[in-house]
This record gives sequence, structure tokens and C-alpha cells, in this order.
Amino acid sequence: MTPMTLSLPSVVELNDPQLAAALRHKIERKTVPHGALGRLAALAERLGLILGTTEPRLLAPQLVVCAADHGIAARGVSAYPSDVTWQMVGNFLAGGAAVSVLARQHGIAQTVVDCGVRKDFAPAPGLVIRKIASGTQDSAIGPAMSAAQCEQAVQNGIELVRGLPGNALLLGEMGIGNTSAASLLAARLGGIDVAEVTGAGTGLDAAGIARKTAVLRQALAANAGATEPLEVLAALGGFEIATLVGCVLQAASERRVVVVDGFIASAAVLVACRIAPPVMQRCVFAHRSDERGHARLLALLGAEPLMDLALRVGEGSGAVLAWPILESACRILGEMASFESAGVSDKA
Amino acid sequence: MTPMTLSLPSVVELNDPQLAAALRHKIERKTVPHGALGRLAALAERLGLILGTTEPRLLAPQLVVCAADHGIAARGVSAYPSDVTWQMVGNFLAGGAAVSVLARQHGIAQTVVDCGVRKDFAPAPGLVIRKIASGTQDSAIGPAMSAAQCEQAVQNGIELVRGLPGNALLLGEMGIGNTSAASLLAARLGGIDVAEVTGAGTGLDAAGIARKTAVLRQALAANAGATEPLEVLAALGGFEIATLVGCVLQAASERRVVVVDGFIASAAVLVACRIAPPVMQRCVFAHRSDERGHARLLALLGAEPLMDLALRVGEGSGAVLAWPILESACRILGEMASFESAGVSDKA
Repeated sequence: MTPMTLSLPSVVELNDPQLAAALRHKIERKTVPHGALGRLAALAERLGLILGTTEPRLLAPQLVVCAADHGIAARGVSAYPSDVTWQMVGNFLAGGAAVSVLARQHGIAQTVVDCGVRKDFAPAPGLVIRKIASGTQDSAIGPAMSAAQCEQAVQNGIELVRGLPGNALLLGEMGIGNTSAASLLAARLGGIDVAEVTGAGTGLDAAGIARKTAVLRQALAANAGATEPLEVLAALGGFEIATLVGCVLQAASERRVVVVDGFIASAAVLVACRIAPPVMQRCVFAHRSDERGHARLLALLGAEPLMDLALRVGEGSGAVLAWPILESACRILGEMASFESAGVSDKA
Repeated sequence: MTPMTLSLPSVVELNDPQLAAALRHKIERKTVPHGALGRLAALAERLGLILGTTEPRLLAPQLVVCAADHGIAARGVSAYPSDVTWQMVGNFLAGGAAVSVLARQHGIAQTVVDCGVRKDFAPAPGLVIRKIASGTQDSAIGPAMSAAQCEQAVQNGIELVRGLPGNALLLGEMGIGNTSAASLLAARLGGIDVAEVTGAGTGLDAAGIARKTAVLRQALAANAGATEPLEVLAALGGFEIATLVGCVLQAASERRVVVVDGFIASAAVLVACRIAPPVMQRCVFAHRSDERGHARLLALLGAEPLMDLALRVGEGSGAVLAWPILESACRILGEMASFESAGVSDKA
């Protein structure tokens, strides 16, 4: 890997009080009791602000499922073997995974990205190869990746999104061991005790979670010097998470709507927000996952997700499940009558 | 109104342990960590049990929006005038209401039913006239309707659903004053102090809610003798709620999936469940409304809704918003790969 200098896209602060006022006025005139649209109103306003219009329309939504393996997985931090990562890539490509089924339901294009899976894939429709290496190094004894590898993964994410159509990006991922990486990122960047953000992942029992927590403490100690966002990402993250960070930064810089899935996607957003805080303005948090650390991470981000179905699937499945609600918010703005247009009496 | 004898459809207990086991097994073999599908798994099982198959498919979903006026509205229990009921019927028929926009998004057929609106409508596509009277009587001084009127409204709901295609019914309603009727039904049938289930409705302030609560106490006193479900419905309900009770009973007897919206729809389900408890087995509760009594009523029913978006719209809007999640649950069962079919390693 040749050393490179990463050029990050700029993510400007969105600040348009006139547009915000116009959106709020439009929503308040809709034929429902004042305030009755609840969180749908806030969502409609958010989508309008991101897309810069009082009639936001979501176009050609893109799901990217970034996949990679993790050196730390060899330490038994997951209930499933690393081979499941490449097997699930096959499942995504065949359309049989949860997120693939749901994306088909909602007409969302799926792109699967090999960011660093421990197996080489033959070219296949819907598969993009952006492999940095066959899995990261073991972060329990040193950095998961070199600075150059991390920058290359971020750059891959930036270029990937540049090449995608549409104005909305749904974040998906696959990687045995990646709840560990997400826990490490949340702990270090959020200043949270790692035990508070360490959970069952794919299904550890209490003893397994205790072992996982001990391994994660070791990883934090082995990478004690990493404090800056990209350093932390390199030391404790994963190739799929680093690629997602690039995706998020690029999507945010283009004012795409970023639909955030569960714990791992939220960890990528946390890194992106530490690099460029206005990223948060472009994010819609789809759901609260059942993975232990997610609620804590959402609180750290100040995010209030749309749904809570106690999912622990990952893949982007929660983002895709929530997608119709975003569509609904746009339609409420665009198609719903006002008190005036419908001739309905407003409150006395 | 000629006295009649109501013949209620029978709603048998669904009890098929073999099917339940087959559904659970099928879900457990899907390519996600065990238990990771969370509430989507429980929903898929419920839909399979209702439709009697391990591959449930939702066909031709029907939204019925039952509308009527309420005598008690003259006492200022709503922030909006009664005229809004007929105005909103026009808005539904023109496709501009929140629920109409959302139903169009999801390809759900909308039928608007005049169950007793205080205005006569010209025939219009999508409008069914099943008017009992121009609004109920004032329940603060006596029964809202006669026994015969109530039975006729229930019968109308039964016949209405008999004539609709498909295997899923979404419950909608419109009626200025109908949160009052729903509060009264919940209080009497649930044995709950009415203050616990009385809220802002279309937007009362604290003083307005206090006045509304006093009026509702008066209505409970004026109808102290009503204790049986149909008696209570006649004394304290509304024509749209009684029609919905008939809809729910008929849908349940045909094993349609009943998608329950907010506070008023849940009150109709409460009445139907008191008449025929197995009704609950056919119900999917879409969302927790922001209307004060809804959380209490859901707890009384033992229902756990799918979403909580702080909506206070009514109309069936929450039911329609949740609809894609039901579709997702069916697709997870029908289209998603198993560990075996996808060649993915299961937990060690």
C-alpha cells in the first residue's frame, strides 16, 4: 500500500432559517390537528432541509453493504465464525439475506462492497471489489490497520458514493467481529467505558460478553495513543467501517439523505461526525437496535431513531425497514392538502 | 329504525400448535443470528397464524374510514367544530388527507363510510353511505344511540367487510368528538378512571382537558346502567365506532389481518374483544398514539404496537404507515434464505 494523502470532502453547515420557517409553515397548514403529525413533521422538515426544498423527493435510493473481516475475531469475540462474512456476501448477491429481501420490497438498489473480506470473490453483478487486505490485524495487540490502509478505505467510500446515482444513501455492513470494532470506536471517541457499549453481537451469552469485554479492554490498552478520529478508526475500526466513513462524508458533502442503520453504521457516523460535525444534519436514524451499545451511542450522538423493533440483524436491514417512513414524510409535504386547499375549518 | 336482532359472526379461537412450531422453526433457520429478527419474527408468526400458513401473503389490503358525528361535541369537548367531520370526508374523497396520501403510497384501497355524519353527501366514488342518523345524541344526558341504532351500525360494519376483497383490514375513523366516545368506552369496559384515558384529542389545553373530563364523568353517570359490551357501545360510543366494531368482528371471523390504528380504533377493538375475545388473535397494533389514553388502552389489551411516532392524526394513518412492516414480515418468511439454502454456517 503506497502512502497517500487523503483529501476529505467538505461538509458545510446547513443553515437556512427561511427554508426551515417555510417548511414548518407548510406542515402546520396540513389538514390535521396542530402538532398531530408528531415525528413525521420533524422528519419532513429534516428531509426538506437536507435536500434544500419545501417539496423534497427521494430519488434512486442506494443501499451499500460494506463487508470485511476482523483480526480480533480470532479471539472468539463472536458467536459465529469469520467464514460467515464471505458466505453472507454470497447471500446478499443471491438476494436471500434479510436486507436484500427488504431492499427488493422497497425498490432500493443494493451494492455489496468487499472492503476486506478474507476470501477473494469472482466478479459478480452488484459486487464491487475495494479490498484493502484479507481482514484487519488483531487490534488486541496493535492497530487494526495502518494509516495508509485506513485512508485508502475512506477514499474508497468517497469514490463509491461519487459513482452512485440518487439523493439518499442507506448504510449497510457485514463483518464477523464488527460489533467489537464499533464498541471500541464508541468507547474511545465517546469517552465511554467499553463495558457500557459491549453486547451480545451475533449472540454471545453473559460469559461470552465478559470475555469479549476483556479482549476489548486489551485492544484499548494496545492502542492507547490513538485519539484523533482517523487514528482511532485505523487503530480500532474495520475496513467496512472505514469505507462507510468515506461513504457518509461524501454523501453528506453532496447533501444526500444518509439513513443510518444500527450499531455499526452508527459507529461509522460517529467517526464521520468527529471529522465533520455537520454530517449529523444529513442523517436520519432508522431504528434502535437491540445490540447493547446502540442506545448509548444514539444518546451520545443526540439521535432519536424512528423505530424500535428489537432487531439485531445489521446489514442495513433497519435502515431499509424504515425507508417507507421517509417516503411518507415527503408525500405528506408534497401531496397532502392544507386547511385552505381542502376547505377544512381550522381550530376555533 | 325498526328493532332488529343482530346476528354476530362467530370468531373461533385459533389454536394450531403445529403451525406455530413450523413458523418458529422456519424463522429460526433464516440467515440472521438467532433471535435477531426481534419483533419482526413475532409479527411474521402472528401473520402466519392468522392466515393459516407458513407463507402468508397479504392480498388487496382495505382501509375503511368510518365517519360520524357526536352529540357530545356540542359541549365543547373538541378543539375543532363538528363541521370538520364532513369537511374531512371531502378531503378523504379528494385524496388530500394524511391517510389518503399514505394509502396511495402503499397501494391500499380506501373506502370512506358515512356512518352518521351531520350532513348528507351526494354519491361519490369511494364513499359508502351507511348513515344511522345525523350524529349521535348527547351521551352526557342519556344514551348516545338506541339499541336498535347500535345494532344496525354493527350490522353495517359486518356487511361492509363481507363485500370487501382481500385478507387484511386497516381501521380508520373520523369524527369530531370521538376521542370522548373512545375514552368513555375504555373507562367503562376497562374499569379505568376516565381521567386516565382522557387527553387533548384534536388539541385541547389543560383547562380544556379538565372540562372534557368533567363532561365525560357526567356521561358515565348518565349511563350508569350500561355494562354489557353492546349496551356500553350504544350508551357511550359513536356510529363510526359501532360500525368499526362490526367490521372488526366480521374481519376476525374471516381470519383477515386487522391492522389497528390509534385510540379510537383501539376502543372499537376493545368492544369487539369483549364480545368475542379471539378477536385479539387477528389484530396487529400499528402504533402508539400520542393521545393520552392510548398507552393505557393498549396495556389493557395487552398489545405492543409496532411504532411510536407520537402521531395524533387518527384516520387510520398510523395503521397505513405501519403497513410496509407487515409486508416485510411476510417477505422475510417467504423470500429469505435459510442457513441451509444459502450455505451459511450456523453458530458454532
